[in-house]
Amino acid sequence: MTASPSAPQRGFPPAEYAARTTRAQGIMRDHAFDALVLTTPHNIRYFTGFDSQFWESPTRPWFVVVPAAGEPVAVIPEIGAPQMALTWLSDIRSWPAPRPADDGTSLLVGALGDLPRRFGRVGFELGREQSLRMPVTQFLDLRQRLPGLALDDGGACIWAIRMVKTEAEIDRIRHICGIASDAYDRVPDLVGAGMTDREAARALRIELARLGADATPFLPAVSGPGGVPQIVCGPGDRVLEPGDILFFDTGSTFDGYFCDFDRNYAIGAPGDAVRRAHEAMWRATEAGIAAAHPGATTDDLHRAMSAVIEQAGSIGNSVGRLGHGLGMQLTEPPSHMPGDGTVLEAGMVITIEPGMEYAPGRMIVHEENIVIRPGGAELLTRRAPRDLPVL
Amino acid sequence: MTASPSAPQRGFPPAEYAARTTRAQGIMRDHAFDALVLTTPHNIRYFTGFDSQFWESPTRPWFVVVPAAGEPVAVIPEIGAPQMALTWLSDIRSWPAPRPADDGTSLLVGALGDLPRRFGRVGFELGREQSLRMPVTQFLDLRQRLPGLALDDGGACIWAIRMVKTEAEIDRIRHICGIASDAYDRVPDLVGAGMTDREAARALRIELARLGADATPFLPAVSGPGGVPQIVCGPGDRVLEPGDILFFDTGSTFDGYFCDFDRNYAIGAPGDAVRRAHEAMWRATEAGIAAAHPGATTDDLHRAMSAVIEQAGSIGNSVGRLGHGLGMQLTEPPSHMPGDGTVLEAGMVITIEPGMEYAPGRMIVHEENIVIRPGGAELLTRRAPRDLPVL
Repeated sequence: MTASPSAPQRGFPPAEYAARTTRAQGIMRDHAFDALVLTTPHNIRYFTGFDSQFWESPTRPWFVVVPAAGEPVAVIPEIGAPQMALTWLSDIRSWPAPRPADDGTSLLVGALGDLPRRFGRVGFELGREQSLRMPVTQFLDLRQRLPGLALDDGGACIWAIRMVKTEAEIDRIRHICGIASDAYDRVPDLVGAGMTDREAARALRIELARLGADATPFLPAVSGPGGVPQIVCGPGDRVLEPGDILFFDTGSTFDGYFCDFDRNYAIGAPGDAVRRAHEAMWRATEAGIAAAHPGATTDDLHRAMSAVIEQAGSIGNSVGRLGHGLGMQLTEPPSHMPGDGTVLEAGMVITIEPGMEYAPGRMIVHEENIVIRPGGAELLTRRAPRDLPVL
Repeated sequence: MTASPSAPQRGFPPAEYAARTTRAQGIMRDHAFDALVLTTPHNIRYFTGFDSQFWESPTRPWFVVVPAAGEPVAVIPEIGAPQMALTWLSDIRSWPAPRPADDGTSLLVGALGDLPRRFGRVGFELGREQSLRMPVTQFLDLRQRLPGLALDDGGACIWAIRMVKTEAEIDRIRHICGIASDAYDRVPDLVGAGMTDREAARALRIELARLGADATPFLPAVSGPGGVPQIVCGPGDRVLEPGDILFFDTGSTFDGYFCDFDRNYAIGAPGDAVRRAHEAMWRATEAGIAAAHPGATTDDLHRAMSAVIEQAGSIGNSVGRLGHGLGMQLTEPPSHMPGDGTVLEAGMVITIEPGMEYAPGRMIVHEENIVIRPGGAELLTRRAPRDLPVL
């Protein structure tokens, strides 16, 4: 029940956080911010290492201020202070939360008021693919109370910081990709006709935990005759029967980092249409992997995969893109789609995720996870079998 | 591996959602709103039944508009439309997301512009214990584009709607409380000295899944000699030894509803101080349960538990409250604390959660889940044993 001996050691040394912070401060200068204020679990953990499942409770706001120079400052509820004190941070300010009349606002006004001002701008999580984890009313009140300071959208700056991963981050993503690859390989032993989608998902969930996944926040399981109608909801209580396709996807985590890749299985011998669609997506994945190298754009990735998908007779794709970044979150920028325009750099971790509707109501999506290296893609997942596995 | 035959049937009939909506519309009138706009998984699921693990991806905003009369309207990314069409909603509007230049804003402006106006106010998730699940920049842009309409804080209105549960909701909370009670009872067979906190948590996680929990988003496990230093982080890699206290807490789910309760275990025979503290928290829980009846306030609950806790020699409690609401989220309003002032009503589901620091760095917290009935509390969890269980 323990993780394999090759598992990376958990947690990062203070030097990792210091290096992240220094690099981030350079990017903050480019974006003209005197500080970033972070409220969400992933961004706070990125800079501090602080981890807690307590984020599941929406009651108390938490704040970490990353100044233009020096260490981050935590402004957090008292309940979290003992554990935050175990991180590399030394400046931890707390209040007895919940305190509806002033849940950290005054402390945060004080912390931001103390900062040296060069640009007069502080970045918050206000932009695309981000949600502010504090009441918007509290944020608007904070703006009123800091009239000399512009509280602006720090989203693009934050994503520029997190999009390129360190080797230590990549090690963790590779490890959870390995665990999920092992779990998918075990599916033929765990799942078969007569089970429901829900029972199949439960068997895979238990196997992921047994093999060393810390948590499995994302595990859709969908089945349908000859293909699946959608890929983001479920499992439901449909019973698997011969002729079905079973689709699994998982975002499981190890030490705070996600994998995100899917697999398709046939219940009994698959028909010709689905075999052809599977083969086409396998080839589209190859094309995506081959196109993924520093200097290429996300538009290029989309084009390389689309060429194969169109030729295979796609009648549509409601996913809206053919892959994305991943790391501390299941999906992160960039998006492989026309107009995204992100230039790939070494150290970016992305999914390669071609998909299509190959008949009305029948979708197929493949997915692998890669890291961009100077010479091209390094595969982090164990490549899906070219022939659709039969259960 | 399947849930017990007594498990409630999953999903709710359209009549449940229609009744929720009609009741909500009455509360919306009291709060002077022409509509609510919902962006978060729990609020959207509450009104539609739509469920997806895809919420784990922060890329695309979703919206559900609850008008003053009639059915809710979904304004959602195309990828979610086939599954939303299976809910009781008939008006579903979608766009090919992600589309950075206009991720649903125009569609939402159209939907809100069509609404009959009586108050000129629309409620958004802007207030306490809520985070808006859309970029704040997009919300501020929406405000600009709807100059005749006040987009105000709908938080208090939304919590007034969700705080009192239907019998069908209570059935699901009772069921997951039963599953977790069974899993806690199995801990002596699964956990013992020599294991790490992480291994102990993994064993409990697997047992919860085996017994029928859908997911376990919250499972801290903390140990320490004679007591635990905090209760919201972990598990770590500390090895359990005789003389330790092991603290487990879990928020697991069934059909979208949470349990939230903890249990304490001694590794080997416990010392006198911890035995006394355990006994005191057991009695404080009894006092909290006895005080929980319609018409009492959350302040009353706090007072009843505090009397026992103070007498037991508490030196502090960083949790900041002695319990809270629960339901579709691990924690929901109200908070049992001075000044909260919520009057308990039949149908509210709450935790009773007394805790204290009984020696420096040594906390103990007990927790049970109850529903308020006309005659007093109905216990949803299997009551913790009065004597600290020994592993």
